[in-house]
Amino acid sequence: MASPGSSFWSFGSEDGSGDPENPGTARAWCQVAQKFTGGIGNKLCALLYGDAEKPAESTGNVPPRAAARKVACTCDRKPCNCPKADVNYAFLHSTDLLPACDGERPTLTFLQDVMDILLQYVVKSFDRSTKVIDFHYPNELLQEYNWELADQPQNLEEILMHCQTTLKYAIKTGHPRYFNQLSTGLDIVGLAADWLTSTANTNMFTYEIAPVFVLLEYVTLKKMREIIGWPGGSGDGIFSPGGAISNMYAMLIARFKMFPEVKEKGMAAVPRLIAFTSEHSHFSLKKGAAALGIGTDSVILIKCDERGKMIPSDLERRILEAKQKGYVPFLVSATAGTTVYGAFDPLLAVADICKKYKIWMHVDAAWGGGLLMSRKHKWKLSGVERANSVTWNPHKMMGVPLQCSAFLVREEGLMQSCNQMHASYLFQQDKHYDLSYDTGDKALQCGRHVDVFKLWLMWRAKGTTGFEAHIDKCLELAEYLYNIIKNREGYEMVFDGKPQHTNVCFWYVPPSLRALEDNEERMSRLSNVAPVIKARMMEYGTTMVSYQPLGDKVNFFRMVISNPAATHQDIDFLIEEIERLGQDL
Amino acid sequence: MASPGSSFWSFGSEDGSGDPENPGTARAWCQVAQKFTGGIGNKLCALLYGDAEKPAESTGNVPPRAAARKVACTCDRKPCNCPKADVNYAFLHSTDLLPACDGERPTLTFLQDVMDILLQYVVKSFDRSTKVIDFHYPNELLQEYNWELADQPQNLEEILMHCQTTLKYAIKTGHPRYFNQLSTGLDIVGLAADWLTSTANTNMFTYEIAPVFVLLEYVTLKKMREIIGWPGGSGDGIFSPGGAISNMYAMLIARFKMFPEVKEKGMAAVPRLIAFTSEHSHFSLKKGAAALGIGTDSVILIKCDERGKMIPSDLERRILEAKQKGYVPFLVSATAGTTVYGAFDPLLAVADICKKYKIWMHVDAAWGGGLLMSRKHKWKLSGVERANSVTWNPHKMMGVPLQCSAFLVREEGLMQSCNQMHASYLFQQDKHYDLSYDTGDKALQCGRHVDVFKLWLMWRAKGTTGFEAHIDKCLELAEYLYNIIKNREGYEMVFDGKPQHTNVCFWYVPPSLRALEDNEERMSRLSNVAPVIKARMMEYGTTMVSYQPLGDKVNFFRMVISNPAATHQDIDFLIEEIERLGQDL
Repeated sequence: MASPGSSFWSFGSEDGSGDPENPGTARAWCQVAQKFTGGIGNKLCALLYGDAEKPAESTGNVPPRAAARKVACTCDRKPCNCPKADVNYAFLHSTDLLPACDGERPTLTFLQDVMDILLQYVVKSFDRSTKVIDFHYPNELLQEYNWELADQPQNLEEILMHCQTTLKYAIKTGHPRYFNQLSTGLDIVGLAADWLTSTANTNMFTYEIAPVFVLLEYVTLKKMREIIGWPGGSGDGIFSPGGAISNMYAMLIARFKMFPEVKEKGMAAVPRLIAFTSEHSHFSLKKGAAALGIGTDSVILIKCDERGKMIPSDLERRILEAKQKGYVPFLVSATAGTTVYGAFDPLLAVADICKKYKIWMHVDAAWGGGLLMSRKHKWKLSGVERANSVTWNPHKMMGVPLQCSAFLVREEGLMQSCNQMHASYLFQQDKHYDLSYDTGDKALQCGRHVDVFKLWLMWRAKGTTGFEAHIDKCLELAEYLYNIIKNREGYEMVFDGKPQHTNVCFWYVPPSLRALEDNEERMSRLSNVAPVIKARMMEYGTTMVSYQPLGDKVNFFRMVISNPAATHQDIDFLIEEIERLGQDL
Repeated sequence: MASPGSSFWSFGSEDGSGDPENPGTARAWCQVAQKFTGGIGNKLCALLYGDAEKPAESTGNVPPRAAARKVACTCDRKPCNCPKADVNYAFLHSTDLLPACDGERPTLTFLQDVMDILLQYVVKSFDRSTKVIDFHYPNELLQEYNWELADQPQNLEEILMHCQTTLKYAIKTGHPRYFNQLSTGLDIVGLAADWLTSTANTNMFTYEIAPVFVLLEYVTLKKMREIIGWPGGSGDGIFSPGGAISNMYAMLIARFKMFPEVKEKGMAAVPRLIAFTSEHSHFSLKKGAAALGIGTDSVILIKCDERGKMIPSDLERRILEAKQKGYVPFLVSATAGTTVYGAFDPLLAVADICKKYKIWMHVDAAWGGGLLMSRKHKWKLSGVERANSVTWNPHKMMGVPLQCSAFLVREEGLMQSCNQMHASYLFQQDKHYDLSYDTGDKALQCGRHVDVFKLWLMWRAKGTTGFEAHIDKCLELAEYLYNIIKNREGYEMVFDGKPQHTNVCFWYVPPSLRALEDNEERMSRLSNVAPVIKARMMEYGTTMVSYQPLGDKVNFFRMVISNPAATHQDIDFLIEEIERLGQDL
């Protein structure tokens, strides 16, 4: 559990020898650091240089910041104006920062020093010689630090220390070998945009208080609807706090479209409604049904084929069955990119069925929507243009920082009718500007975080072609992984054939299990392999990949690639690491 | 609508003469700027100095960044390593940033330059001589810039320009004269914490991927429950995306507690449920009822007294009425700090009624919860300790950056039972650590943004006593405003008596209306006053305060003070500004 030889302030390879893909040792990095301003060059360089030359243990109990403060000023100006010479955080508190009188200088210096800490973290995140995570068990972390909240303030030195400590134990989600979730990677422009969003610190409810962000949301959602294929990008939408809420919106709007009286009268006034989604779909459909008073029993799970795709004939059969019972099918949620298999439901066939039975067609493309940006892969979502609504999370496959989830609706005005409550203190009808830009009343939320700017700025920086290149590369890496392991000794694929998304699902079978018969005992032992390898990965901190059981399949690895920093070598590394950590099991 | 004499890059007073409360002219500020590093001292100083000396118009069509790029390097080192000498953003794209090979240097330089832009914005936000908003109508902003998203990437010079443009038209929510919403101000430690949160870029669903943040959420929610007064801080809770969703959680959990079968069976399986809240309560209660399939008709609005407080006898009467009809009262949502009047419902009396009729008592303290931090004012929430659940938004009265809304429940385990769906790909049961820290399954969301760190870090920096001082000061300022206007010519109070929260509600009556009889014509003319003054405020950009009608009361101003930068002089300014802008009406 110890953190061998890794210090938060050490850069470059821990052994000083470098990595073939990332040749910078601390010394080389230091030379680079010297070339930029920002107050970090000299400060960091001295630290980093030292750290890499000495064994990391020697930094021992010296708190990182205290170490930083010892660095002598190296500037050439006399008298020296360096902040270290006369800003002593140990004597400063938050009350010395703006809006305090004379607060500008400590504010700027403090924020700059926070920024230095963040920039180091950013650089380290991309460095393969650092750990993905410096894992500690909950009770260890709780005991090692005092996290409690007290009556009295702490000084800014302590606050900076907390920032460092928090990042020390954080997971480096931008690390090239972090594959644990559907959202991985750290986009620099997206990060900058999120910092700006925090600084602007406003709410999305009205144009009045978020003029630019409201316009950008309008522009961005329209562009996304164009890409989906709705004529002229018409329709409606919103950025919601995550795919689960977006899917809940779909259910809410579909129900309202069919039975608008439900808004005032509740579910008591309507017949029993039934939603359909595949057995591989995301759990948020059931969660939404529970919340909306529909009930999880009214979500019918449609059978999937061996690749995890919804079987249309089973969908039709279950719709007819529901109708025969006098129930009302009101929603089919097809999945474009299932969470585990990365499967794409056959949207065209689903669309035909929805049309035939006049059912709202939702497409949960939270994970797969990104493929619409790729000319090579967007055919996998053919039929999405026939959906009534779509969930599409740019924070997944498109690498936008968390959170950024779009809910898109084909019919304009429906969200507004469904959700508006006309709060007069927010949505005054006698304002001096075009009120169609006060979009807050169509949301379930009142205050709503600004999630659009990071996507918009990334889109300007990358262009649609940039997203396309990213997505094509991730899919190519998944195929590379698949090609390596499909015939490799010790691997079994969970389903046959080339992955359609970046999900590659497989068992690693340790040597001790390879000769065993395919019986219950082998299954039971195989089931323990992934959890143990995963635990070891985390304790070593070298890489992270998810695992889970699914139906009658015992724990298997689900590799997903959305990380723009990942390379072929990182895939090779993952395989070697699984084998290194699992061969004795 | 033009922006007279204000340039995004100008600092200090626009006329160079300074402000009595903020004596820094650009020249003085420049001297300060010279004293800190961070790459901004010299760069900014040259710009600012120049800007304040010249009429702002002379910067004319020179794009800000282009102006910045002309500043000669002033460093003393030869050969000069300043990034401007050899980092030319016009030739760099996002693909040159990390994870690109050799991407460290452009990444660090780019992020540093973004930071410079943000730091200038922060400083300007607190400068009374700058505008609160540089207001433009939607069609103006849409025409003036091309916001569209294209196939091809833009270079980093353009990206930096977009950051500047976005901030140029943003509302300065930290400005000392911004009073428009319940969330105002810009806390520097909170801002730093939000930047760190963006950089860590993770999700709250499991300890595995958010170890520190999960522990901080645990610690912080427990502390909040202690302050509410639940024994030992026991109970449960979550940070949710805003007060409306927190209130929806209350309704969801209350329903589940009474009828757990609703999760599977839906509303069809339960009798008609009725919720009660005051006629001054937040619209999210109705929004929640609509979404949850309860229906807005089943939300009974209880009468308020003239101060906006729920009348307990009317609550009891309506509960009995509902029961007589065979309906089931399941929730009373009392409000601690109503949105418009800032009223506190009589929680002890409500608690007695809830106990008598065995109804879930929720307290919507989204706005008023902050007063629990003040020994002087917390009596206004007496009885909150008897609630079953509480909404408390630290992003309002406590000044935490958006968003930060806590939903707190007295009974442990209920959220989990109500919402869990056991997704095996996230909440594996065979992990190597204590699974009680995987809290994601109790949320309605799947992915969940990290909202806790900014509150936690601010709390460490200010201490409970720091929040108390902030809250006491805001309430004192509200009383100051009330004392000035209650007997001042041209003002009428919407309700009598000292404000209980920082809400001060009043009409400004222009001279032309003062002699008129109190009839319909006067009401109609008075109704137009606040919208016109507000429109003028926004066009001048000098201050912002909200207005609305309420019931039979025509448009009135609702002043609220949560902004830590506001002073007595800002209150004086607001009054003078209302009179200046409204005297001709």
